[in-house]
Amino acid sequence: MRSYHLTALGTVDGYVLREEERPEPGPGQILVRVRAVSFNKRDEMILNGVYPMPSKPDLIPMSDGAGDVVALGEGVTRVAVGDRVIGSYWSRWEDGPLTYDAADQLGCSSDGMLTEYALMDARAAVRFPDSLSYEEAATLPCAAVTAWTSITGGAPIVPGQTLVTLGTGAVSLFALQLGKHLGLRVLITTSRDENAQALRDLGADAVVNYRSEPNWSKAVKEFTGGRGADIVVNTAGPGGAAESMRAAGLYGHIVQLTTTAPGVESVSFPGDAWAQTMATVRRVFVGSRADLEQVVELIAATGMKPQVDKIFTFDELHEAFRYYQSGAAFGKVVVTV
Amino acid sequence: MRSYHLTALGTVDGYVLREEERPEPGPGQILVRVRAVSFNKRDEMILNGVYPMPSKPDLIPMSDGAGDVVALGEGVTRVAVGDRVIGSYWSRWEDGPLTYDAADQLGCSSDGMLTEYALMDARAAVRFPDSLSYEEAATLPCAAVTAWTSITGGAPIVPGQTLVTLGTGAVSLFALQLGKHLGLRVLITTSRDENAQALRDLGADAVVNYRSEPNWSKAVKEFTGGRGADIVVNTAGPGGAAESMRAAGLYGHIVQLTTTAPGVESVSFPGDAWAQTMATVRRVFVGSRADLEQVVELIAATGMKPQVDKIFTFDELHEAFRYYQSGAAFGKVVVTV
Amino acid sequence: MRSYHLTALGTVDGYVLREEERPEPGPGQILVRVRAVSFNKRDEMILNGVYPMPSKPDLIPMSDGAGDVVALGEGVTRVAVGDRVIGSYWSRWEDGPLTYDAADQLGCSSDGMLTEYALMDARAAVRFPDSLSYEEAATLPCAAVTAWTSITGGAPIVPGQTLVTLGTGAVSLFALQLGKHLGLRVLITTSRDENAQALRDLGADAVVNYRSEPNWSKAVKEFTGGRGADIVVNTAGPGGAAESMRAAGLYGHIVQLTTTAPGVESVSFPGDAWAQTMATVRRVFVGSRADLEQVVELIAATGMKPQVDKIFTFDELHEAFRYYQSGAAFGKVVVTV
Amino acid sequence: MRSYHLTALGTVDGYVLREEERPEPGPGQILVRVRAVSFNKRDEMILNGVYPMPSKPDLIPMSDGAGDVVALGEGVTRVAVGDRVIGSYWSRWEDGPLTYDAADQLGCSSDGMLTEYALMDARAAVRFPDSLSYEEAATLPCAAVTAWTSITGGAPIVPGQTLVTLGTGAVSLFALQLGKHLGLRVLITTSRDENAQALRDLGADAVVNYRSEPNWSKAVKEFTGGRGADIVVNTAGPGGAAESMRAAGLYGHIVQLTTTAPGVESVSFPGDAWAQTMATVRRVFVGSRADLEQVVELIAATGMKPQVDKIFTFDELHEAFRYYQSGAAFGKVVVTV
Repeated sequence: MRSYHLTALGTVDGYVLREEERPEPGPGQILVRVRAVSFNKRDEMILNGVYPMPSKPDLIPMSDGAGDVVALGEGVTRVAVGDRVIGSYWSRWEDGPLTYDAADQLGCSSDGMLTEYALMDARAAVRFPDSLSYEEAATLPCAAVTAWTSITGGAPIVPGQTLVTLGTGAVSLFALQLGKHLGLRVLITTSRDENAQALRDLGADAVVNYRSEPNWSKAVKEFTGGRGADIVVNTAGPGGAAESMRAAGLYGHIVQLTTTAPGVESVSFPGDAWAQTMATVRRVFVGSRADLEQVVELIAATGMKPQVDKIFTFDELHEAFRYYQSGAAFGKVVVTV
Repeated sequence: MRSYHLTALGTVDGYVLREEERPEPGPGQILVRVRAVSFNKRDEMILNGVYPMPSKPDLIPMSDGAGDVVALGEGVTRVAVGDRVIGSYWSRWEDGPLTYDAADQLGCSSDGMLTEYALMDARAAVRFPDSLSYEEAATLPCAAVTAWTSITGGAPIVPGQTLVTLGTGAVSLFALQLGKHLGLRVLITTSRDENAQALRDLGADAVVNYRSEPNWSKAVKEFTGGRGADIVVNTAGPGGAAESMRAAGLYGHIVQLTTTAPGVESVSFPGDAWAQTMATVRRVFVGSRADLEQVVELIAATGMKPQVDKIFTFDELHEAFRYYQSGAAFGKVVVTV
Repeated sequence: MRSYHLTALGTVDGYVLREEERPEPGPGQILVRVRAVSFNKRDEMILNGVYPMPSKPDLIPMSDGAGDVVALGEGVTRVAVGDRVIGSYWSRWEDGPLTYDAADQLGCSSDGMLTEYALMDARAAVRFPDSLSYEEAATLPCAAVTAWTSITGGAPIVPGQTLVTLGTGAVSLFALQLGKHLGLRVLITTSRDENAQALRDLGADAVVNYRSEPNWSKAVKEFTGGRGADIVVNTAGPGGAAESMRAAGLYGHIVQLTTTAPGVESVSFPGDAWAQTMATVRRVFVGSRADLEQVVELIAATGMKPQVDKIFTFDELHEAFRYYQSGAAFGKVVVTV
Repeated sequence: MRSYHLTALGTVDGYVLREEERPEPGPGQILVRVRAVSFNKRDEMILNGVYPMPSKPDLIPMSDGAGDVVALGEGVTRVAVGDRVIGSYWSRWEDGPLTYDAADQLGCSSDGMLTEYALMDARAAVRFPDSLSYEEAATLPCAAVTAWTSITGGAPIVPGQTLVTLGTGAVSLFALQLGKHLGLRVLITTSRDENAQALRDLGADAVVNYRSEPNWSKAVKEFTGGRGADIVVNTAGPGGAAESMRAAGLYGHIVQLTTTAPGVESVSFPGDAWAQTMATVRRVFVGSRADLEQVVELIAATGMKPQVDKIFTFDELHEAFRYYQSGAAFGKVVVTV
């Protein structure tokens, strides 16, 4: 079988293709014939050596992949050979809060999905519905789950509430789509007016250009009749914090996905805006397998389609990664295996 | 009857005693013969004109008071003449989240308790148990409820978890006492070593001097075997935010009580510390009548005694307020009426 | 103005029309020019003297009505003259759990909506969106809120979960519609095959005839691939309990709306079925104003239309009530005022 | 090493001692040198062939045991050799809701603790504090966790609320002790007046003899000033259901631990009593490892001591089991290994 391994940091060429022995699943493991994978920001961070969790040596990268179960290790009952599955980002985090003991990530502390045959803990596997292709299913583990836990992980949501999500990265697009399926009114920001129609087609109730309106919290206040947002998914790190707080309503929930940026040491919220609300700021770090199962259940029920921008072949991996890094994509960048 | 009114800002002498007509309760109102009141930081902020909510003209100040119901307006059934009651800080916030419609405060937007006979919305009244004197009951509405909602308003707590509370102000002392009754391990900070024994007598498992240990989050980490705190009640405003974040454990809850300070425009959290946790930062603004009722229920069940520092007479009001402002008190400053 | 009063029990003729003085709103009250009202089972129970709460003498009946605010009592700020409002079933239950103090019902312990000008506590009033006519808005306070709290009052729901609701009464139809807006898969039962298409048009994923399939829990198991239902809204009282339990999945929630029936003294659940699950059985009794506001917010966001069967005039009240009692209606029976 | 195996049903002599090879832990497993075990009702049900889950052939029985980790299988990091641990009842249920995939029980579908060296999934292991002996720790997995999830698994509890627990079985005694540590007022029932003082010594606020007061719900109403209980832990199966419902307050939670009894097919609640409340009836089935960890954390923080009635040696196993079955014990029956 063929696998990419991470052999050098800092350049896409550090991903090296290698022919190797197909592994056998040990007790509690499964072997998955991978059919598609997709990129996430964290893959870039791992490549650049700036991800907060250390990688295993000679890593098979990438957390997000979909394929067919082809072999079961001893004692595995939760999936069967032939099942179409995706792997959960945190391979051993099944439900409840994350524990240090469960802190293992596919494509980081364990080998990931950028291989023809991925070996994984059976606990990581989640079946996906027929309505999804392998390419679509491969987009879910990181970005869709992050969007889901951002929206649903705080106070219970009520249809009609307002969700604000920043930018057109994959997490934000999933937040838009999932938010609409949850009955939320969604305002999304972008720097590119040419995206506005596509965002409306995905369900956005309002689109705001954060370049031309850097004080976009005002647009949120207008959109909500002065009440402010119920949920703000701040994908913009420390730089998005101030306007996110100004956009929040009385009991608003702000999700602060990342807390660092080059040259920025802290996350700062304007005190006067915060004093006007009971706003809560939460962090999320993807989610558990139970969260992924909920996303998959919602997709099975609604037929929701992830936004895929472009699909590359396994041999075009370096080109695909460079395309992903360019930031040009509107939706997920996928590689078939 | 005699009442103090707020007639000028910025000085305690702005509280002027006046003889006036005893009012009659209208529909839905009650009249309370006040027996004791207690000071809170907010009374000082209102006096200094820096409280975020505007005061009514010719205000009878102070939110915290206890007394006897002496007359009922039409339709009042929830209390009876002769009941010993305290008033809830937000007089119309009964339960659930605060709404703009319920945003009325005793001793601010409505007249308060610094009077022999206080007129109040019957919905604000809460009976207190025999185990409490008027002086003790008068300490509860603002500080004890703030401590309670700080501890219990986030994720469900489990005995054995760690609570960190900052300083020896009234909120922090109540957090210590309530936290112990909830089975928490409590670390409290102070700048005065001479308080250490009194804090231990109130139940503190650890006392840290934040003057001699400005990086007190290290002491929290040691106290918790490296895990960090489950709840941090940050009474220190923006200045306490950074160490609070560093002290927080994996799913720690930080309560940011105030968000502004003279010359400080924002609340800043260190990004690297936050990245290591899923810490949530919440704000609380006292709480509802249901919260006050829960505090009273706990006190009735446990016999917990609020920490009263000193009791003054009604005529010593100005002296009492100055003593409160001096910061010398360890516990609440009370005035009998 | 003209009002109907309940002057005799047991017969619709006990509702007597009377010309009387238009009242003035006292402090905290509002006057509403009622435009439409709708019937609920509880109106029939009050008429028959079998409702658990005693009625006030000379009652103006009916809890559900919609109209325009025409006058405000002293101190009322939460609505304005000209607002289109409905009244909340429990007029003083604003949020949180019901308390004995808030146990007042429109059209039962207080006068209700079957009048040209209804006097009510301002706290009961909830504005409704332009997308709803008076007739549609008048259907919401009892049945839609009951359906809402039945679905949302237990564990957090996830789109894709299964809701089973019994029969085609108003609560069940609202459960169907609200459930679909919440992303649930809905199975509804009926005794009339001729309703099946209409139920599918309202969104039902499955319709089961409980006459021809008295063991309808089997159909639920099939519908859910053996897993069982996540939520069962048992509108059928003690008689529906056994099949509801058999239909429930591993952590299923059964809502037991009523617990008594003529000649039936207890509610019984099959022990063997229950032993297979962690099913929870809850009761709900309509809900708070906050619940009604959530329903209205959902309707404003989605444009959902309540199912109205037939509209009568104020003078046709007796005929309308008899039609309602006949059980022939599919949807709410409304009377314009 | 020596192990007891279940070789015949219906009699304690079906537990047969056998010398066998000491096993090696496979990947993800650990080997525990067991030091003490304790009996639970479920061990008796398994022996009698009436437990709802099938047992593995040639079972090593008993779920509850404590010992030392002596060997680790490949990949195990969550415990270390030398750790003192207990096993979690459901060996693979780590957190969140139980799933069918995690439905494995020590001493039932997997081998249990009645052996000198127990092989178990590393995920089942939970360290216990120094304040507990092996004998005390061995009492926790089934009964203490059941009591814990009964009390804490429903609505958030508030100190001062009332807990009613039925009888003096191990679950009920743990409910009493844990309830007191959570600040609850506890009323416990017993049929033996001679237990009353011991129950008060364990913290009971009230003791009621359910033989002499079969309508013990009246005593609960008196104890609560007419309000009724907040939580009722019904350990008495269908037979305890009616009085449990009558004892429940407005939003009372009744925990129905078992739902069947010889000759009783259903669990019945009086409809009129239920109509007066919003009582919820839940089932619990022990709990997850996270629940066990919470109990252990509480015990570490409070120094709480489980009630041990009598300790037998490994060779006295049959005698110990017969003593347990006699029902004479007040507290847990423990066997050292």
